[in-house]
Amino acid sequence: MVKSDYSIGILQYIPFFYVIWSDDLLSASEISVVKKTIEQDSALEPDEKEQLSLWLDRENPPADEELKHWKHTITNSNVKLIESDTYPLASLSQRLGNLYCDSCDFNDHLKHIEINLGIQPNHYNHLFDVEVIHHKTSDFYNAKVLDAILKGPHAKAVDEFRGFLNQPIFHWDVRRNKEDFRGKVLEQVQLLGTNGYGAMAYDSEYGGIGNMPAYGAIFEHLMFVDGSLAVKFGVQFGLFGGSIQKLGTKKHHDQYLANTGKAKLLGCFAMTETGHGSNVRGIKTTATYHKKSDSIIIHTPGQNDNKEYIGNALHSTMASVFAQLIVDGKNEGVHAILVPVRDKNHTVLEGITIEDNGYKLGLNGVDNGKIWFNQVKVPRENLLDKYGEIRDDGSYFSAIKNPNKRFFTMLGTLVGGRICVAKGAVGGAKMALSIAVKHALNRRQFNDSVKVQEDLIMDYPTHQLRLTPAIASAYVYHVTLEEMMKRYSDNSQPDKRKIETQVAGLKSIITWFANDTIQECREACGGKGYLLENRIANLKGDVDIFTTFEGDNNVLLQLAAKGVLSDFKAEFNSAGFTSVLKLLRSQLADKLSTINPIYSNKVDKEHLYNPKFHKHAFNYRTRRLTYTLAMRIRSYIKKGIPSYQAFLKVQTHLLALGKAYSVELAYTIFNEFCASVTDEKHKVLLEKLGTLYALHHIYNDTGWYLEQGYISGTKSKAIRQRVERLSTELRPHIEVLVDGFGIPEHCMTAPIAK
Amino acid sequence: MVKSDYSIGILQYIPFFYVIWSDDLLSASEISVVKKTIEQDSALEPDEKEQLSLWLDRENPPADEELKHWKHTITNSNVKLIESDTYPLASLSQRLGNLYCDSCDFNDHLKHIEINLGIQPNHYNHLFDVEVIHHKTSDFYNAKVLDAILKGPHAKAVDEFRGFLNQPIFHWDVRRNKEDFRGKVLEQVQLLGTNGYGAMAYDSEYGGIGNMPAYGAIFEHLMFVDGSLAVKFGVQFGLFGGSIQKLGTKKHHDQYLANTGKAKLLGCFAMTETGHGSNVRGIKTTATYHKKSDSIIIHTPGQNDNKEYIGNALHSTMASVFAQLIVDGKNEGVHAILVPVRDKNHTVLEGITIEDNGYKLGLNGVDNGKIWFNQVKVPRENLLDKYGEIRDDGSYFSAIKNPNKRFFTMLGTLVGGRICVAKGAVGGAKMALSIAVKHALNRRQFNDSVKVQEDLIMDYPTHQLRLTPAIASAYVYHVTLEEMMKRYSDNSQPDKRKIETQVAGLKSIITWFANDTIQECREACGGKGYLLENRIANLKGDVDIFTTFEGDNNVLLQLAAKGVLSDFKAEFNSAGFTSVLKLLRSQLADKLSTINPIYSNKVDKEHLYNPKFHKHAFNYRTRRLTYTLAMRIRSYIKKGIPSYQAFLKVQTHLLALGKAYSVELAYTIFNEFCASVTDEKHKVLLEKLGTLYALHHIYNDTGWYLEQGYISGTKSKAIRQRVERLSTELRPHIEVLVDGFGIPEHCMTAPIAK
Repeated sequence: MVKSDYSIGILQYIPFFYVIWSDDLLSASEISVVKKTIEQDSALEPDEKEQLSLWLDRENPPADEELKHWKHTITNSNVKLIESDTYPLASLSQRLGNLYCDSCDFNDHLKHIEINLGIQPNHYNHLFDVEVIHHKTSDFYNAKVLDAILKGPHAKAVDEFRGFLNQPIFHWDVRRNKEDFRGKVLEQVQLLGTNGYGAMAYDSEYGGIGNMPAYGAIFEHLMFVDGSLAVKFGVQFGLFGGSIQKLGTKKHHDQYLANTGKAKLLGCFAMTETGHGSNVRGIKTTATYHKKSDSIIIHTPGQNDNKEYIGNALHSTMASVFAQLIVDGKNEGVHAILVPVRDKNHTVLEGITIEDNGYKLGLNGVDNGKIWFNQVKVPRENLLDKYGEIRDDGSYFSAIKNPNKRFFTMLGTLVGGRICVAKGAVGGAKMALSIAVKHALNRRQFNDSVKVQEDLIMDYPTHQLRLTPAIASAYVYHVTLEEMMKRYSDNSQPDKRKIETQVAGLKSIITWFANDTIQECREACGGKGYLLENRIANLKGDVDIFTTFEGDNNVLLQLAAKGVLSDFKAEFNSAGFTSVLKLLRSQLADKLSTINPIYSNKVDKEHLYNPKFHKHAFNYRTRRLTYTLAMRIRSYIKKGIPSYQAFLKVQTHLLALGKAYSVELAYTIFNEFCASVTDEKHKVLLEKLGTLYALHHIYNDTGWYLEQGYISGTKSKAIRQRVERLSTELRPHIEVLVDGFGIPEHCMTAPIAK
Repeated sequence: MVKSDYSIGILQYIPFFYVIWSDDLLSASEISVVKKTIEQDSALEPDEKEQLSLWLDRENPPADEELKHWKHTITNSNVKLIESDTYPLASLSQRLGNLYCDSCDFNDHLKHIEINLGIQPNHYNHLFDVEVIHHKTSDFYNAKVLDAILKGPHAKAVDEFRGFLNQPIFHWDVRRNKEDFRGKVLEQVQLLGTNGYGAMAYDSEYGGIGNMPAYGAIFEHLMFVDGSLAVKFGVQFGLFGGSIQKLGTKKHHDQYLANTGKAKLLGCFAMTETGHGSNVRGIKTTATYHKKSDSIIIHTPGQNDNKEYIGNALHSTMASVFAQLIVDGKNEGVHAILVPVRDKNHTVLEGITIEDNGYKLGLNGVDNGKIWFNQVKVPRENLLDKYGEIRDDGSYFSAIKNPNKRFFTMLGTLVGGRICVAKGAVGGAKMALSIAVKHALNRRQFNDSVKVQEDLIMDYPTHQLRLTPAIASAYVYHVTLEEMMKRYSDNSQPDKRKIETQVAGLKSIITWFANDTIQECREACGGKGYLLENRIANLKGDVDIFTTFEGDNNVLLQLAAKGVLSDFKAEFNSAGFTSVLKLLRSQLADKLSTINPIYSNKVDKEHLYNPKFHKHAFNYRTRRLTYTLAMRIRSYIKKGIPSYQAFLKVQTHLLALGKAYSVELAYTIFNEFCASVTDEKHKVLLEKLGTLYALHHIYNDTGWYLEQGYISGTKSKAIRQRVERLSTELRPHIEVLVDGFGIPEHCMTAPIAK
């Protein structure tokens, strides 16, 4: 037995106090956890309690000399710190105590502090000069449980599909020549089709199981194989097949859908034109009904009115062509028509010109092309006529009288594709994050001369900060998109307009998130991330265009923002608008009443981690942006500025609202989802991810919140510190978190991820 | 003559007042410009002056009905707005007046308002329902003048070089196969070498002109041809040749430099190892002096200690190898040794293994490889011995006794390469911006149903905001790097440590800027930006790695921040440190004294556009971050935390300081440069770009400035509005601005930029 300057009671608390004070990060509520524990610790003498309490005064912290003395006490003990202990710090304290005392009981209260304060070895192991038994990762949580939570109802379909992907044909390789690459991807698509995966969203009579959400889940998995495969698969079964399924009627289904699902009939989705990317309503291709021959003439009027970037254009025998339908001299708006483009020998049909789009930044396994039509005649039946038909007497009929509404109804049925794009983007981000994390758990760089080994780069705070919030976001967005897919596929809710608005915004923020994340992962892997063999480079090139296709993000965000405005039935120029503004103002006033100096200065952990705070902050931002936007537009219109110009003037404001609305929506969905998780242990972990997501996003907009006086400077700093601390706190679990994404091992081919 | 509700005097002001009030954006100083003009307008009657003044009261703005009436007056006049008029709004006013008056004089005072307020047609043309004669661009400024300003003293060299690049061998094409691509780039490098461009930075006796800055200028131009060419050129002449020039002595120069400059001797720069990317001091390759044979043995000890990503590895016959020099059993630290790697038949020499790094995200025309050495013997003379030599008696000698200082002196001589990397990045950004701007001036999308044509996408406020601040930054960074190159090449200043710190920071922020900008340009061009033929995709892949090579940005920023700290001779743990902190505190107090509520609420244009405000804000941020950083580190050290660990804990703080310091430095250099420009007209334009750069960056950190109470919420909003408004104000000149980059037409091969 050795002698110590401190009594045994106090001694056991020393490691804790050293950790607490060397970082000076504890909030009032955390201090009170420690205080309470000390008060309830019956093993302590009254004077010990008093001494320990004195050391908990934030106004009057222990002197530096005291801290140094604590440190020497720990260092000189030669006690080891074992990261794999269930309570590493409490166990260190115990062993420290045992040095000075032969038969002391272990102070169980310390475990309570360790758990409640979320103190992790990587918070403090570097503070001690004792030997640290390092562990790259903790097994406190279980990746399989997380994976099961994320798979949700699709567990069976997903597990089967993961097994199916374990075939040589799906093995990833560098493919530079586009013809070879496209050939390979075509084979893969055909194999998937033959095995029923293409038709999953179709009804059983067409080879499917009528399960769009399960289709979405397997679609995401294709990103783990290859981006080109995912996109070509989506074009064939989702876009081409989807247009037949959603815009066509039984005659089309019976004739085409089964073969489409099997990839026996290859088709493309010819909507975008060179001159008209985002403005679908303005496309120039015409489909003119010719009564005499009872046929429709498809025509490209000008050189720049060709269809462009059409995926599957070089392999297809049929195209679903979007064109202005003209019946009896009247333009009935955009409709889709099935147009055969090649014969059985794969020769392009007369009147049709198809050109290869050539090499692209990514997705070179997808055959994108341009298509021109020169007076191409197809039978009347080829019109996909669910929402607008040409009757036997040659007249046009639609149950939806308003052409505007008809157009948006037709486009709205295709929203599933947009959800899939966002799902694919999340898949790409998950893959890049898994690779970057596994690399960072192997790679060492620089070191403390005292230590034998260089540090793992995953142990750098900057590295934790660049990867961990992104992992949290990937969880949040996965859950959000699953929910959107569920709502979209719910046939009891036929009006999909609200979902369309929501998906427009979510697709934008999620595809941007994926691009930023993949870029961050590339840089986090240094030169290794630049080599194609490590996969991140291809993900980067492939996911890049996700911000543009299926709707340019900037255009979609404006759509989302306008949806928010019209949710309030804001009819500009009318009396109704004023009452809407009044409503908004009173809602804001309610919210503002809570934003007193006490609220805007509240920096306590309890408060900052409380979902109520996050929801309030997100909701305040959305409402406030809506209100000020509506006010600005009204003011312009009152001055006589036309509505189109007024909207142009508030474009950046619209983008901000679109983003704010989407972030709030994602957080809300995730939060509700967490409440439904039954595994209590992993629920806590998911909630922590939600908190990180929320604080990270609030901090991203901290300038705005500060401008509004919603938070104070002190609170802004506290939020930043909490984001950093949560990222560090999750460090021991980071491998479990990425393993929870469930990416099959046979897809993780990157050498640096081994 | 027609009759109007307004007197002629007032009528001429109506278009101005409508423009001013429909946006409600004028600051007090701008209002006073208008007020003063009205007071001095002798053509106005006293009651007219009174009426006009009433309409200038910000507290009591004209009623909406009044505005509508103004608008109708303008609309009903059927007067055309001609954007190409020198004073379009004043000229519209004049023609409006002439409708109601046969022989009125034109009110010249209006021109004064138009110029002083920076009112541009694109601010207001959409406000009127009159016919607008549109112009894509203005010829008010001259691109050639801007180009001449940017070329500075290198005009002759650059112009000649631009002409030289107009040869079929430099024509850009898609090259997918790496062997073909590398062969092409090798040919290009050899042609450049043969024509003396490789040796430009070497002395005349070795075929050069001893002009590193001119070398930097032509290097940037290679980015317009192809990123792989620029990088391979830089490896051969800058890194390999540069190591001989800067680390070798006359014997090396005489033997190798002329042939290196002509690309007759191809070499590589073998520094980075698989296990050690950023930590050069920790490399494992050994160079052991063997006294008996008077030779040095180069050896790779472990499988992961090979040289990695070595450019030119597959074409080289010699390598400049960085290794731990061991003389007489003592490790003298990292030195460079010339090691032949292939014989005349291009066969790899015994003991050497070279492997291809394979395909990469970009730069596939550069042959990167891995190199292992197995006890490879080279003569003692091959040691590049400027800073450390092995004497004839076999002993080691260096004039720099401190091994640390020796290491940094050696690395410091290679800083020119880092400046070139940043210059290359700016070149890539310029190219992408030029393509995106030219595309945006051709592409139309959506429209106001009233108008015949859809809008040019360059006319969208969001599009202006995403491209214009980036153009301003490209100007600022071009000028900054020219200045750094000048300082670096100034032989009267032998101590390059300060420049090294500065370049470390600048390289980081500039390569990140370039990547962000190229990404923004890709998205701004939509699907067209995704096609390789339009060049942006390749720029993106090529420039991506610039954030990693020649020093990882995160590591470099920490280096820069530590440089800032040591500039204050901060010796931690010593008494000196306390006095430094005192000094910093008093400097901050000086600054803080100006930050009273009046200052932090000042939103006037005069103030926001004043370089004094920008400098003050940037300097405050740098100083404040330095002070708080030093305080945090001191506090950790006082508590007994080792310095290495303390720095780890403040890593994110270091990054923030490194960035802040670099932004301040760039702005300061650009500001001084503007003062030296003699062309008064274009000086104003450059100053405006500087203002946009400053406000854009201050707004990027608005959260921090608000946290500090340096600015108020109102001021933050005012800054954001100014960034948006400046971006719009520069719209008419945007094509001239990108043409001012001087990218030769034969390099602008992108079809969308035609």
